[in-house]
Amino acid sequence: MISKNNSSCSKQTKFNLVQVKGAWNRQTEQSQAAEGKLSDAKIYESKSEHGVSWTVSSPIVFTYTVIQCRNILDPSNDTLLWGHIGDEELKGILINSKPPKRFVVIDETVNQLYGSRVAQYFEARRVVHKIVPLPTTEENKSMELVTKILEEVHGFGIDRRSEPIIAIGGGVCLDVVGLAASLYRRRTPYIRVPTTVLSYIDASVGAKTGVNFAGGKNKLGSYIPPVATFLDCSFFQTLPRRQISNGMAEMLKMALMKHIGLFELLEADGRRLLNSKLQSCDTSKSSAQEDSAIASVRIAIETMLEELAPNLWEDDLDRLVDFGHLISPELEMRVLPALLHGEAVNIDMSFMVYVAHQKGLVTADEKNRIIRCMLGLDLPVWHQDCTLALIQKSLRERLKHSAGSLRMPLPTGLGRAEIFHDMIEDNILCQAYEKWTDELSSGNK
Amino acid sequence: MISKNNSSCSKQTKFNLVQVKGAWNRQTEQSQAAEGKLSDAKIYESKSEHGVSWTVSSPIVFTYTVIQCRNILDPSNDTLLWGHIGDEELKGILINSKPPKRFVVIDETVNQLYGSRVAQYFEARRVVHKIVPLPTTEENKSMELVTKILEEVHGFGIDRRSEPIIAIGGGVCLDVVGLAASLYRRRTPYIRVPTTVLSYIDASVGAKTGVNFAGGKNKLGSYIPPVATFLDCSFFQTLPRRQISNGMAEMLKMALMKHIGLFELLEADGRRLLNSKLQSCDTSKSSAQEDSAIASVRIAIETMLEELAPNLWEDDLDRLVDFGHLISPELEMRVLPALLHGEAVNIDMSFMVYVAHQKGLVTADEKNRIIRCMLGLDLPVWHQDCTLALIQKSLRERLKHSAGSLRMPLPTGLGRAEIFHDMIEDNILCQAYEKWTDELSSGNK
Ligand SMILES: NC(=O)c1ccc[n+]([C@@H]2O[C@H](COP(=O)([O-])OP(=O)(O)OC[C@H]3O[C@@H](n4cnc5c(N)ncnc54)[C@H](O)[C@@H]3O)[C@@H](O)[C@H]2O)c1
Ligand SMILES: NC(=O)c1ccc[n+]([C@@H]2O[C@H](COP(=O)([O-])OP(=O)(O)OC[C@H]3O[C@@H](n4cnc5c(N)ncnc54)[C@H](O)[C@@H]3O)[C@@H](O)[C@H]2O)c1
Repeated sequence: MISKNNSSCSKQTKFNLVQVKGAWNRQTEQSQAAEGKLSDAKIYESKSEHGVSWTVSSPIVFTYTVIQCRNILDPSNDTLLWGHIGDEELKGILINSKPPKRFVVIDETVNQLYGSRVAQYFEARRVVHKIVPLPTTEENKSMELVTKILEEVHGFGIDRRSEPIIAIGGGVCLDVVGLAASLYRRRTPYIRVPTTVLSYIDASVGAKTGVNFAGGKNKLGSYIPPVATFLDCSFFQTLPRRQISNGMAEMLKMALMKHIGLFELLEADGRRLLNSKLQSCDTSKSSAQEDSAIASVRIAIETMLEELAPNLWEDDLDRLVDFGHLISPELEMRVLPALLHGEAVNIDMSFMVYVAHQKGLVTADEKNRIIRCMLGLDLPVWHQDCTLALIQKSLRERLKHSAGSLRMPLPTGLGRAEIFHDMIEDNILCQAYEKWTDELSSGNK
Repeated sequence: MISKNNSSCSKQTKFNLVQVKGAWNRQTEQSQAAEGKLSDAKIYESKSEHGVSWTVSSPIVFTYTVIQCRNILDPSNDTLLWGHIGDEELKGILINSKPPKRFVVIDETVNQLYGSRVAQYFEARRVVHKIVPLPTTEENKSMELVTKILEEVHGFGIDRRSEPIIAIGGGVCLDVVGLAASLYRRRTPYIRVPTTVLSYIDASVGAKTGVNFAGGKNKLGSYIPPVATFLDCSFFQTLPRRQISNGMAEMLKMALMKHIGLFELLEADGRRLLNSKLQSCDTSKSSAQEDSAIASVRIAIETMLEELAPNLWEDDLDRLVDFGHLISPELEMRVLPALLHGEAVNIDMSFMVYVAHQKGLVTADEKNRIIRCMLGLDLPVWHQDCTLALIQKSLRERLKHSAGSLRMPLPTGLGRAEIFHDMIEDNILCQAYEKWTDELSSGNK
């Protein structure tokens, strides 16, 4: 028999956790008996007549690096192989131990364009490798593709600690591989190498992975960031023009929400950036000036990181980055594959600018400048399948899944925004829709 | 053109993140311009001639509650419905808002025994509910079962914020449902109600979820803890005796690793606890004494929580709780379904005690006391399929997946242990195996 603390009604004790000779021990703040490593985790214990209850609070720190680089497929460039290791000493040890092994998933189209260079890179570096090209399209973005990757990884065999899985492709490829990696052995490190503008700016910077399920977009997934993302703009050179526009929609989103400088840059220079596929014209390394291709991409990533880092698991439902993402998921799944992700986002943003104008948040001049900027980027600003019924349904769904509040980001000027919690009044919505259709439908039928 | 910080070689800037009017802003420690909410996340920026790189460090705090209770299926007991909500005020609001909705997955056998009471509970509480009984056996523990659950959840429809998925069953059920919940909408809260001794003591207390894949045990999964675990010992009454023994193996593991009091309790009283299915004989609430059923279960959970809470994502590879889990996964998958999880763990532990003895870490007397205690719990201490070859293969695998160190917990006395890093010398392994087989094979053929 062991005697029990006297306890009739519940009282709580807080315990720290201290590691002494390999074993963890609970310690109250008062009784710090042993010396040892202190954990950030805490245990709170309550006793009542029904028994004991414990609440565990345990912080996990996610760390990942986003690295801009040039010539990532040049065998003399270390990045693809070792860029994820920040510690120079550790890198030295790894380079000099057993030959490295890498499992690579690459988008089929990207493989046609860059596959031989990828293979050459690993051959030149004497890496034991397997490159798996997959048709990572939106229609195939499913659990089946994840399972296929898992089977291949498992067959190849990797060290879950030191041999990250590498994904090279657009957002679909990065999302699917990220999910596979986060499931394999409950978490295997992975690396993202985005090859589209959209995935460079958006999918690469945060923690989200995902696949479509039961007709719903990204309904399954995880919040496991890559160990590293390697950004090389030169992949954009082979992208069709429409894919550049597509990615610039997410760039414009950040401009509208929080960076007037980026908006003005896109307004003034957007079309030229689109034409030049966001390639820098500045080749001299010593230049003290940043050209607008480099600046626009940098600001897009900086503002995105600012919003994602403090809310990596999206626990805070008030998110500026959700702008353009309230109606677009429904629209995108409905008209697939007619609209690309960024295009659907832009149609959503365009409508929301009309809502903001109708609510008196942006002036007619500001609204017109925004729409003109969108058109300059060759982005669709209206779509016939984006009906009032679809909009209303999307907002109702949003309300249902956001703990009873709409949490709708709307511009309140250029490069400024606020989050609105109440459902939009029906008359505002109808008037905005009518005006939106009146003014913009003609060029977009 | 935007002017660039002058930067030839890399220098790092640390940024805090401050939220002002809904938007997050980077701020260096020096320039704290605006007042606002400060995030725990940080961004470190480095600039070099190749471009910029950013390192994000973002802590996510996992919080979950493990609650002991009685009569969990009694409709007057709030726990199953509201026990996961710690905040009384919030609970009041939820109880008085829209009727609650719960999706429940229950092990098929448990459903035969308790299904009608579960249904009655939700009917009496006027909960919109769906109860899905599934054959959650080790052989079915796969991604297919996860997908089946996801389809059912999706069809039923739940609020991802306030309507946790409930799993009622053994470790297989809890692991599979946990994985489904962690994938659904990238993370949906779930509740564990363990009905076996093993899952009560072990699977319930940590964050791990999982399924078997490609012949490997728990090869896929996640580290997402439930919002809450509700522990009710009375489910044990319908368990076959063998299942009680099975769970007590994990209890014994904690005793051997770090709690001599628990070992002595199991040594003295283990058989009686097994016979009485760990049911408490103490029904008077006011008793100041804890009987050994209550004490053994409580200590097992406390010691387990101590080890799991500071290492929720198993980032630290040195883990006492891995005792019994170095050889057993291989053995378990090989002889499935002949051995239960805890039985395979016990065979592993029994062998390791011989290794510890051979290494001079435990005396012959201590070794014999441990084996006798195992036999008292009706646990197998030897198995013909646990060959020397299988043991060597398992240890090599372990070495491969633990960053080049064996990290093998071994007892160094009763209720004490240490973690050993070097591969065990071949002669020690062989001698231990020989002695183990000599002394224990006869009763276990
Ligand atoms: N995880 C996140 O945070 C996040 C963020 C935004 C978007 N996404 C997801 O990303 C997906 C959209 O990404 P996407 O727009 O990159 O689509 P995508 O992956 O389908 O790629 C678009 C097309 O470009 C081709 N392609 C890729 N790189 C190329 C190159 N360098 N040259 C020529 N062709 C190339 C691909 O084969 C594909 O046909 C969506 O599924 C979306 O949900 C995820
Ligand atoms: N997530 C974790 O941290 C963790 C820890 C330990 C074990 N596990 C996993 O748990 C699994 C083993 O769990 P388990 O031993 O509970 O096995 P189990 O889930 O297969 O249940 C054992 C058997 O008992 C039956 N049963 C369950 N409750 C009953 C009751 N109250 N009365 C009568 N019969 C009942 C079940 O139908 C089943 O046949 C393994 O797959 C193991 O990997 C996970």
